[in-house]
Amino acid sequence: MQPIGFVRSPYSETSQIPKGCGAKHDAEGVLEILPEFEEGLQDIEGFSHLFVIWTFHKAEGFALLGKPPTDDRAHGVFATRSPYRPNPIGLTVVQLIRREGSSLQVRGVDMLEGTPILDIKPYLSSIPEEKLKRGWLDEAEKRKLK
Amino acid sequence: MQPIGFVRSPYSETSQIPKGCGAKHDAEGVLEILPEFEEGLQDIEGFSHLFVIWTFHKAEGFALLGKPPTDDRAHGVFATRSPYRPNPIGLTVVQLIRREGSSLQVRGVDMLEGTPILDIKPYLSSIPEEKLKRGWLDEAEKRKLK
Repeated sequence: MQPIGFVRSPYSETSQIPKGCGAKHDAEGVLEILPEFEEGLQDIEGFSHLFVIWTFHKAEGFALLGKPPTDDRAHGVFATRSPYRPNPIGLTVVQLIRREGSSLQVRGVDMLEGTPILDIKPYLSSIPEEKLKRGWLDEAEKRKLK
Repeated sequence: MQPIGFVRSPYSETSQIPKGCGAKHDAEGVLEILPEFEEGLQDIEGFSHLFVIWTFHKAEGFALLGKPPTDDRAHGVFATRSPYRPNPIGLTVVQLIRREGSSLQVRGVDMLEGTPILDIKPYLSSIPEEKLKRGWLDEAEKRKLK
């Protein structure tokens, strides 16, 4: 695994990244792709949304159970977005604002400044919201609303 | 990067996996998580859909430009789902049918039998379909409908 580029983000520390119930991810940032991979961006500008696969480069080690900021109960790491994962891979859906050469200006950044990017893929289709069940997250939100 | 488990899939060769415009991914399969990571699945059964991050273990090398099965024109690798990527990472959204211990029975498998799994994350929200633009893919589909 090698970085194909790096994230330019307004967040230099994890404490700055919005977390928990109703956190908004509207921050703009740039996906700076290395010049040797720029050709791989051809025609990407036609897509409104992208999957960005990246590494939690500041996270060390992993925990199979952990309490997310959205709940006071512990859950399995694969049922959360915790950075402390067996493979420290992050996944973010961003909106593509525009491309300038090897730079992609995007909205929805929740990564730290300097985060290594492993891959970018087009976002092609969605699961309809009414078909989604969100397990412990919905339950935690309901407990907080009470 | 280490596998956290492996995919049990009905597909033993890439030629068997539905591809191209309108391809349906309804195949059922199993995500077999290694026993040492089973605790990380706690509470995953409450989610209807999961992101599975995996490796294209049969793909060798990469091409920055390539013709996908859905089009007769070449596009950048980051604007396609080609297996020949700088980092051979695959991403699939599956529907979780049920969990049995360290095995997740899922629908929507498009990986080969024996594919190494790197990570599983809960699918929490969707981009509304009406906000999605799908660039060259929509154009290719329109050309075929003519």
